Amino acid sequence: MRRYAWRRASRRQTSDLMLTNIRNTRIEWCDCDPAGIIFYPRYFEMFDTSTTVLIERALGMNKIDYLKAHNFAGHALVEAKARFRQPTRFGDEVAIETKMAECGRSSFKIEHRLTKAGALAVESFETRVWIVRRADDPKRVKSQPIPAEVLARFNSS
Amino acid sequence: MRRYAWRRASRRQTSDLMLTNIRNTRIEWCDCDPAGIIFYPRYFEMFDTSTTVLIERALGMNKIDYLKAHNFAGHALVEAKARFRQPTRFGDEVAIETKMAECGRSSFKIEHRLTKAGALAVESFETRVWIVRRADDPKRVKSQPIPAEVLARFNSS
Amino acid sequence: MRRYAWRRASRRQTSDLMLTNIRNTRIEWCDCDPAGIIFYPRYFEMFDTSTTVLIERALGMNKIDYLKAHNFAGHALVEAKARFRQPTRFGDEVAIETKMAECGRSSFKIEHRLTKAGALAVESFETRVWIVRRADDPKRVKSQPIPAEVLARFNSS
Amino acid sequence: MRRYAWRRASRRQTSDLMLTNIRNTRIEWCDCDPAGIIFYPRYFEMFDTSTTVLIERALGMNKIDYLKAHNFAGHALVEAKARFRQPTRFGDEVAIETKMAECGRSSFKIEHRLTKAGALAVESFETRVWIVRRADDPKRVKSQPIPAEVLARFNSS
Repeated sequence: MRRYAWRRASRRQTSDLMLTNIRNTRIEWCDCDPAGIIFYPRYFEMFDTSTTVLIERALGMNKIDYLKAHNFAGHALVEAKARFRQPTRFGDEVAIETKMAECGRSSFKIEHRLTKAGALAVESFETRVWIVRRADDPKRVKSQPIPAEVLARFNSS
Repeated sequence: MRRYAWRRASRRQTSDLMLTNIRNTRIEWCDCDPAGIIFYPRYFEMFDTSTTVLIERALGMNKIDYLKAHNFAGHALVEAKARFRQPTRFGDEVAIETKMAECGRSSFKIEHRLTKAGALAVESFETRVWIVRRADDPKRVKSQPIPAEVLARFNSS
Repeated sequence: MRRYAWRRASRRQTSDLMLTNIRNTRIEWCDCDPAGIIFYPRYFEMFDTSTTVLIERALGMNKIDYLKAHNFAGHALVEAKARFRQPTRFGDEVAIETKMAECGRSSFKIEHRLTKAGALAVESFETRVWIVRRADDPKRVKSQPIPAEVLARFNSS
Repeated sequence: MRRYAWRRASRRQTSDLMLTNIRNTRIEWCDCDPAGIIFYPRYFEMFDTSTTVLIERALGMNKIDYLKAHNFAGHALVEAKARFRQPTRFGDEVAIETKMAECGRSSFKIEHRLTKAGALAVESFETRVWIVRRADDPKRVKSQPIPAEVLARFNSS
């Protein structure tokens, strides 16, 4: 039933949560495989960049700066789901619409819709957690509550 | 409720469908991001290779040969889902267990479990379709029923 | 002595050959490694895209169309050389200046200069050949003279 | 003339410097582009891993440990050159032979030869420097002399 609940929550909250972003990009030769269509892990790279851009806009600074500001190591993925509705090929101009669908105490949900000439090609749903470097070993990371000032930005805008 | 049904189906069929494969690999520097952990789209690359290896074993030939044999363009993804339970880092030796969870007329479901020292790090579920090059435009692709002899191999072994 | 000759040739010809292009891009998290700087194979991806954009401009069509128009499989690299002068990091806005440095009967030389805030970060030199699909086996490729109408475009503009 | 000198130096020193490594790998679907052959930046990823494996063998520890042991951020590339003699395709089993060709005070040269069924497909030459995290800003890096104990390992074996 969790999936249904998530659906309802994200639908209900779209009126409150307006943190969204659209960016345009082009599918390149380097993104495609011998079938001539995009190699799907590339979509996840694009969506990761879109998530970064969304958070940069919300926090008003570049990722390198918001990582420093909060001594944190990133917004690691705990779950990702994507549906591929139609392939894209090199040369295709696409738009990626990204929104903050839900935001909890230490995790948040992002949704991406990639369209080609207005038609949905891929939709993706991700759940991310806030991770910081461990004090005892800065090379390792652990999850942690999202700082209050960040949460405020994620929930307004 | 679809997710639950899928779960039951895949559990029920594991006794019939024994097409599985395990391969060992190592997370490399090139797979990791500035947080020092794997950049998750890399997992999807690894899983794609694991799916290829599974099908190569089932069909008894390399991908380049099974594509030629069936004049087809690949087994494109229509849905992917992954849960990331613990991060992996460069130098980590991991095992990827892959199995054919379900096989329909023109699509099939694959599951991957990536473990580190026996502990589950990532699990992934993919639905794929059989795609062939279009006769009218060999640069474009379309989905098509899985050939009977392939289906027989996918369902036995 | 070949390197010197190449230098002279490319210097001499810059007055004749004006096929150049500049594009702006941003180094992203997905481009960087655990040292926090760009993972250099990513530069080669960017340069490959820049080469494509240069040729698209010269030929007045997208890559997918110029491949079809000439029944060819791409402009494969035979030699690449790059010097990395200073690192770039995620969030860095960079410019890539690309030019056709030399153009022979079946191969051509491209040079790229990637700058950050006006300072040179990377320069790269590539030699490429025109490859077509083999008639006897369309899955295989072979090099071939550049078509006359393409050559004319590469040498003018 | 520098290229010739380098050649001579590396040839002369092969008798003294025996730090070499061979590893086998397979070109995968994810490494290939719409021409059906390997997308060349992937070679640089493979060579980077080979360099890591070579240094791991020389130092007797994994990269994650040798980075910690020397508080350093990696062996960044300052120059790379590659010649692509014949293409490889998905499914090709290849061998990568890697050797330390030269080792200076703060930089070293590595050569890679990738072969398919014994025939040379790619050769690559890289110059790398030892980089450490800056004390004033651990997110930034700078080059530094190779530690004496590392140098000893690089020059013997």
